[in-house]
Amino acid sequence: MITSSEYRARLSRMRPNIHIDGKLVDRDFPRLEGAKNIIAKTYDVIHNAEFKQYEDVLTATSHLTGQRINRFNHIHQSAADLLAKQKMTRITCHQVGGCIGRCMGIDSTNALSVATYMADLKYGTEYHQRFEAWLRRFQENDATACCAQTDVKGNRPWRPGEQLDPDLYLRVVDKTKDGVIVRGAKVHNSFAPVVEWINVIPTRRLMPDEGDWAIAFTIPADAEGVEQIVSAATPDIPEGYGMAGPFGGADSMTIFDNCFVPWEHVFLCGETDVGSMLALLFALYHRHSYTGCKPAMTDVLTGAAALMAEVNGIEKAPHVTEKLAELICTSELCYGTGIAAAINSHRDPSGTYVPDIMYCNVSRRHAGLNIYHEYDILADIAGGMPSTMPRPGDWVSEETRPFMEKYMARNPKVDVQDVMRAFAWVQALSCSEWSGLMQYAGVHGGGSPRMEQIAIMGAYDVEKPKNIAKRLAGIETGKPYSFDRLGETPQEL
Amino acid sequence: MITSSEYRARLSRMRPNIHIDGKLVDRDFPRLEGAKNIIAKTYDVIHNAEFKQYEDVLTATSHLTGQRINRFNHIHQSAADLLAKQKMTRITCHQVGGCIGRCMGIDSTNALSVATYMADLKYGTEYHQRFEAWLRRFQENDATACCAQTDVKGNRPWRPGEQLDPDLYLRVVDKTKDGVIVRGAKVHNSFAPVVEWINVIPTRRLMPDEGDWAIAFTIPADAEGVEQIVSAATPDIPEGYGMAGPFGGADSMTIFDNCFVPWEHVFLCGETDVGSMLALLFALYHRHSYTGCKPAMTDVLTGAAALMAEVNGIEKAPHVTEKLAELICTSELCYGTGIAAAINSHRDPSGTYVPDIMYCNVSRRHAGLNIYHEYDILADIAGGMPSTMPRPGDWVSEETRPFMEKYMARNPKVDVQDVMRAFAWVQALSCSEWSGLMQYAGVHGGGSPRMEQIAIMGAYDVEKPKNIAKRLAGIETGKPYSFDRLGETPQEL
Amino acid sequence: MITSSEYRARLSRMRPNIHIDGKLVDRDFPRLEGAKNIIAKTYDVIHNAEFKQYEDVLTATSHLTGQRINRFNHIHQSAADLLAKQKMTRITCHQVGGCIGRCMGIDSTNALSVATYMADLKYGTEYHQRFEAWLRRFQENDATACCAQTDVKGNRPWRPGEQLDPDLYLRVVDKTKDGVIVRGAKVHNSFAPVVEWINVIPTRRLMPDEGDWAIAFTIPADAEGVEQIVSAATPDIPEGYGMAGPFGGADSMTIFDNCFVPWEHVFLCGETDVGSMLALLFALYHRHSYTGCKPAMTDVLTGAAALMAEVNGIEKAPHVTEKLAELICTSELCYGTGIAAAINSHRDPSGTYVPDIMYCNVSRRHAGLNIYHEYDILADIAGGMPSTMPRPGDWVSEETRPFMEKYMARNPKVDVQDVMRAFAWVQALSCSEWSGLMQYAGVHGGGSPRMEQIAIMGAYDVEKPKNIAKRLAGIETGKPYSFDRLGETPQEL
Amino acid sequence: MITSSEYRARLSRMRPNIHIDGKLVDRDFPRLEGAKNIIAKTYDVIHNAEFKQYEDVLTATSHLTGQRINRFNHIHQSAADLLAKQKMTRITCHQVGGCIGRCMGIDSTNALSVATYMADLKYGTEYHQRFEAWLRRFQENDATACCAQTDVKGNRPWRPGEQLDPDLYLRVVDKTKDGVIVRGAKVHNSFAPVVEWINVIPTRRLMPDEGDWAIAFTIPADAEGVEQIVSAATPDIPEGYGMAGPFGGADSMTIFDNCFVPWEHVFLCGETDVGSMLALLFALYHRHSYTGCKPAMTDVLTGAAALMAEVNGIEKAPHVTEKLAELICTSELCYGTGIAAAINSHRDPSGTYVPDIMYCNVSRRHAGLNIYHEYDILADIAGGMPSTMPRPGDWVSEETRPFMEKYMARNPKVDVQDVMRAFAWVQALSCSEWSGLMQYAGVHGGGSPRMEQIAIMGAYDVEKPKNIAKRLAGIETGKPYSFDRLGETPQEL
Repeated sequence: MITSSEYRARLSRMRPNIHIDGKLVDRDFPRLEGAKNIIAKTYDVIHNAEFKQYEDVLTATSHLTGQRINRFNHIHQSAADLLAKQKMTRITCHQVGGCIGRCMGIDSTNALSVATYMADLKYGTEYHQRFEAWLRRFQENDATACCAQTDVKGNRPWRPGEQLDPDLYLRVVDKTKDGVIVRGAKVHNSFAPVVEWINVIPTRRLMPDEGDWAIAFTIPADAEGVEQIVSAATPDIPEGYGMAGPFGGADSMTIFDNCFVPWEHVFLCGETDVGSMLALLFALYHRHSYTGCKPAMTDVLTGAAALMAEVNGIEKAPHVTEKLAELICTSELCYGTGIAAAINSHRDPSGTYVPDIMYCNVSRRHAGLNIYHEYDILADIAGGMPSTMPRPGDWVSEETRPFMEKYMARNPKVDVQDVMRAFAWVQALSCSEWSGLMQYAGVHGGGSPRMEQIAIMGAYDVEKPKNIAKRLAGIETGKPYSFDRLGETPQEL
Repeated sequence: MITSSEYRARLSRMRPNIHIDGKLVDRDFPRLEGAKNIIAKTYDVIHNAEFKQYEDVLTATSHLTGQRINRFNHIHQSAADLLAKQKMTRITCHQVGGCIGRCMGIDSTNALSVATYMADLKYGTEYHQRFEAWLRRFQENDATACCAQTDVKGNRPWRPGEQLDPDLYLRVVDKTKDGVIVRGAKVHNSFAPVVEWINVIPTRRLMPDEGDWAIAFTIPADAEGVEQIVSAATPDIPEGYGMAGPFGGADSMTIFDNCFVPWEHVFLCGETDVGSMLALLFALYHRHSYTGCKPAMTDVLTGAAALMAEVNGIEKAPHVTEKLAELICTSELCYGTGIAAAINSHRDPSGTYVPDIMYCNVSRRHAGLNIYHEYDILADIAGGMPSTMPRPGDWVSEETRPFMEKYMARNPKVDVQDVMRAFAWVQALSCSEWSGLMQYAGVHGGGSPRMEQIAIMGAYDVEKPKNIAKRLAGIETGKPYSFDRLGETPQEL
Repeated sequence: MITSSEYRARLSRMRPNIHIDGKLVDRDFPRLEGAKNIIAKTYDVIHNAEFKQYEDVLTATSHLTGQRINRFNHIHQSAADLLAKQKMTRITCHQVGGCIGRCMGIDSTNALSVATYMADLKYGTEYHQRFEAWLRRFQENDATACCAQTDVKGNRPWRPGEQLDPDLYLRVVDKTKDGVIVRGAKVHNSFAPVVEWINVIPTRRLMPDEGDWAIAFTIPADAEGVEQIVSAATPDIPEGYGMAGPFGGADSMTIFDNCFVPWEHVFLCGETDVGSMLALLFALYHRHSYTGCKPAMTDVLTGAAALMAEVNGIEKAPHVTEKLAELICTSELCYGTGIAAAINSHRDPSGTYVPDIMYCNVSRRHAGLNIYHEYDILADIAGGMPSTMPRPGDWVSEETRPFMEKYMARNPKVDVQDVMRAFAWVQALSCSEWSGLMQYAGVHGGGSPRMEQIAIMGAYDVEKPKNIAKRLAGIETGKPYSFDRLGETPQEL
Repeated sequence: MITSSEYRARLSRMRPNIHIDGKLVDRDFPRLEGAKNIIAKTYDVIHNAEFKQYEDVLTATSHLTGQRINRFNHIHQSAADLLAKQKMTRITCHQVGGCIGRCMGIDSTNALSVATYMADLKYGTEYHQRFEAWLRRFQENDATACCAQTDVKGNRPWRPGEQLDPDLYLRVVDKTKDGVIVRGAKVHNSFAPVVEWINVIPTRRLMPDEGDWAIAFTIPADAEGVEQIVSAATPDIPEGYGMAGPFGGADSMTIFDNCFVPWEHVFLCGETDVGSMLALLFALYHRHSYTGCKPAMTDVLTGAAALMAEVNGIEKAPHVTEKLAELICTSELCYGTGIAAAINSHRDPSGTYVPDIMYCNVSRRHAGLNIYHEYDILADIAGGMPSTMPRPGDWVSEETRPFMEKYMARNPKVDVQDVMRAFAWVQALSCSEWSGLMQYAGVHGGGSPRMEQIAIMGAYDVEKPKNIAKRLAGIETGKPYSFDRLGETPQEL
């Protein structure tokens, strides 16, 4: 497994196809540093003695090669793998104070593993074999991937073919003996500018006549015909203050401008039913990843709130305890239902394990409904300081430094320098462009609560509890007692 | 395993020590019928072909006798047993539309199994052996038990010995060579008037000098010196309308009036540390039971809301879907974290499995915080009819029946008789003394959200996320990364 | 102004047309006592020296006769009248611990005062004159009225004429030179069995071809052709414990069985546009009444919660303060916006004052959304005792009384008899069929939060803030700044 | 009244005592532009024909000079003045999309008007005369002021004199015949770098021995001894996109470094009781200002959400209507209770009107509890675009512009340029450092919900509803009915 230096070196060698604020730049552009530091951390923890105890969590044995690989590149072979993925996600997010950036890769590869097998079974295609050939190299190279799913969508109520411009959903515009030509744009492609591969999949259920939009493939992130228009936010905190990283976000609007994809990288092409399933499967895996990362985000906010309470000297105040408990309950409800999702997973015919739909969705929905409230709690306990505090330069300037040292003193058990560090970090965490990004991501990343509601109502048979109600009401139904949501006990327990 | 007829016959033979509204009555008193019907259902499902598929859930193999027993009398020997208990609870609650009434028995016996072993280990006593001797007979007899934990407590801020009357917490007032004499009163003893045994345990943590209050024992519910002052609520719904039962509640204030308990039934006596632990253990097991019964209660309310939507002809309204989704998320978050509690259980030295503290408590707290809101949702969808509707007699009376048949017609797909049944049941469920009881029980049964908050904050090390925060903020802590809430993956998976 | 004895005597003389649980009874039937005691209180306060200071609030000067009348029979002649009505409502509700029962009368008469004038202006009819003639006698007699608005409605998505039975909305089936014949049923007619007059109005907006259903009239509550099927709930609390009343509810399904109404009592007949307006006007006045009664209900729950805290000895606990503050904020937000509704009222051409639509609706909606949560707070602070406590008879019985006196002792500053009184009243208030009725009424009485949302969105021009947004976003709109919700400052201030 | 050009010119002439990120700058520094544009708007609206209709709202007649003045410099002489202030605040906030920045001035001058009079009455001092002399010049000059209240406070649980450094609360360190010397630092001084005067008042209740900290005065914002360390955030949006302003925030940590204040500007010095009252009075007036500005902020978020719905083509979706209604109810509940606060104001002996404590506080608390949720609603309706969208430069760049024009097209009724404008503005509004500042300000500005809770519980007599409860429960209290929160009807109505 490679080091983060090798990861950075690889990025440096890529074709510059990154557009930031109107400039074409390469991957060494400073504003990408925050996002690169995050991905780098997923390599570093493997080699870091502090994380040796989590070796079985952070790595896995490839079912293709039998080699030890970074778990972010692994296909889940058991419920235990799903549990380990959840743990890995929580642990690594803790190191960067937010999104770890590699879930899109693991979730899209697992979804492709199931969908390509399904297509082959139904249509006699060879997608799964192609996919595994690519995956083998991907694992051997210890490479990184993101996922490009969300189309720009044009007018929301219209279907792809109804748009004034059919490219508003990415589509196949031509096929040759060597591959396909695609055109369109995908948005919200998190970490796309700092990974090597982009896995492209459909954004929604497709109708039988929407075959041109039923396209899935993988492509190098710097391939010809791929242009990334990037929004990157890295909190601006000074050396020695705040996160060692720093860590930040980077999202692409990825343009596929008549882009050629060779057949060996095409994983679906025209199979609308499987394409629909693939869209849902990625969402499902991704929501299971959220059962690891959202608790981690809440852990970070819990830690931040506890730190603010310490700095302000109000650790024992009853309302602080009450609010910390609220945060903890949010993280544990989400993580606990993530465990239930893994325990109630099933083995797909491809051999890949798929988590329980209901638990993944209720967990993600609960997290999504609470994210703004969690920031509210942090702001409440922090007081106004993170929003109006002096800037880094004021701590450096000879004129103002003495005032800072005199007037920023708070809880006498906390060094004034650490008071500053604490506030500066909480400012970055909760009062910055980056915090806005985390808030939006908390609502919409992986699908908003409304999307989860749709998934929940699709997976839940309301007639079952209604039948229970009718029996209790003395209404004749002719139907015996039955209830879907009891779960199977794993044979092994 | 016995039938419910045998269960009823046994109750009939018990000493009349039931006081209801100032009258001394026996256990055939009509107002107890609702509660008896509930317990009877736990016997009936065993012999009912409709539930044959749930045989492994509803019964278990005794670790003492190797015989097949009702799972409500079983000591958990594995995580799978805890999962099965959760399922059994949800299934049986569905049959009665609410609390199934036997959790207090299973939870107190499991807690005693752990605590008696712990006491013997530490103090060289023989409690565990006594307990198992009693349990063996209890299982062989297929008997029922409740639990008497909550003392009347007098002035809340005062400890037991500080009360003006030391009996405000149940205590040992004398010991003889044959047993102990106890005095005091326990309240909120659900189902005490309709079971055979009462398991008595301490209500709270005890200090070393509070040995007189560190007493645990079991006693026949009609023993000399035991008097039950009973509050019983059974919804008043007519024959043919509403629940076939009917099902209702019955709670005792149980008076121990210088009551003698033979040593063979004494399971703790003076060991304040183990007594404290026992109080917490029962609460823990009971909260795990809530991860089965509270989802079931929500399922019943979900079914009721869906039924009301059907009757009112508004099944497709977006706000109805939205509200049903809310209910479903509440039940699945609670049940899912209950699964996580079982999966993260540990084997106690006694061999009994103990569920995870955190997941049990976040689940119960979430349920407790939502119960009134769930009734709100039902009322919202039902409209005002359940609260102002004509009474059963008006449907029978020749004068008013024609008006009822004419004016109660709603969704033409629903027979007007079933409209009446549906509304009458929802009235019983949500607009009756019984619904008030269920609301209070939803908040306080098994410990209120505030109690769970205390348990959560006691079990959670806030320093861990705070350390994560400090590392991210660049504050030197000297402590490596560490986090408590990642869970162990079961070896078997 | 008459005494409550005269009020009771009048009821005794009425034709028995009350059906309760299948029996035809007169108005002296005991189960109606709770509701009668409430209406009686509105007469008693007038003559009670304790309320002398509120004389100007509780009474008003008739604009028809110049005589001093009970304000419940007054037509609002100023914003100050609306403010006084709000106060009167809050004060009188305090005396009975809930709904005061006469708002339906005052709100329907005010709505009729506006609508009849509107009809005459538009159609040259004589409704207003008839209405005022009736009102004059009504005021002179110091009589009581309720309002029958809600039709049974059959299948909700269908309009009146689409129902399988056109009578599912009350309608005119014949007209003669003397009057009209009506048929149908109105539900949720609160206090109908204990008042003298029923004001009947349409339930919803009507289309031009729905003239048969555009009917408004007043009728004696015991007229031929009127039959009341009554649901009455009075909390069962013993003499000397709990509310001196007792106070309770009584709601009718009122059947109009080919009922004759003389022209002098017909206030609309076929004018669908004015009928629609009348339906909305009553709702508006009634929601303004809720800005008085709902705060009062919250005051009662606040007082109950504070009393429970005192009894339990936890008055100083921070979470108790927090929860009391929540209750207080709910009542004051509702009452404050009610004041704003009065201050922003307008004088209708009829001379009657009409409160502001927006403030009435946001206030009522806020109350409706919070009612279950308020009961939750009370249950939380009370603990489980109100739900499982011994019954009145157990306090009287010689056998159990000593146990009660010994074990119900709590806060030593509170006499044990008062502990019992407090718990018994809170049981009646929050754990009884009556509390279920109050919860449903809290959601649906006067229109549920969903109805208020519809009224709010109908009265609010979203284009106005959207235009503000566009201007700020730099989007050319060609529209100047404008905003509807600034309010007029009363000239007098 | 002056123009905004004159306002800007005055700022240019001020002594450079602004420190931003370590640099000493003058008031023409670009990063202050956002805040200056806001204050400028308060001058511009006076001279803008579009706002002619609001002339009586935006201006007032000085009670000192009889001249027409900007209402932001007026002392409230009636309830109508308070209503007009509320309106002015809402109107002007609409123009800048957030905080209008001059409330601190009007609220501190009104509070000083009351407190100085109170001190003179009690102590025979001459503060009020001094204050009015200053105010007269202030009004004549059409000047601006902010308020410096919040001390840095050091360790929160300690009182001023207990701090390791007594300067952690601003205090008098010396007095001379000409004036006083003060030392300390005030934080969260919003708009301090862009106004001419700073009104300094105590931050909290003071004990009799804390006279050194009982100091109130006014001082030019660029006086010797005053240094401002400034945090300024202006959203970065390109010319032609987004707010014409742009508008932004600027907050100072204001250092008083042995700063001299002449007696003519000292308004309290040592009177701890009046100083305590002054702290509360400013908070009260400021919370009343929030009943104007917070609804305006919600109006802006409502408009933004409606605009996003339009852009996304989902204006008719039921969940959008539901969420807009939620926002509208939040603004109208706050504004409505603000009206009630004005109507229930009282005339202080100084002649100045003081709004009702309870309504000001429940309104501000409700707003503070909802602010994060409002941003949540906006993010929900907007979708992820505002958080990951390309930057301004990408719209200008020839390489990327064609992609933007092609792929940003949404609702075909909205020009793609306006789509960009809309998203760019919503990004600035909800996903930027400035939005973080607005969120923190929404919680803490004017005192956080916890502060309001304290004020509410201090102003509310819980014994009153408890007495109502006891009467209803049949508990003898000997106290007659009484209730504080009924309000007085203004004589004029």
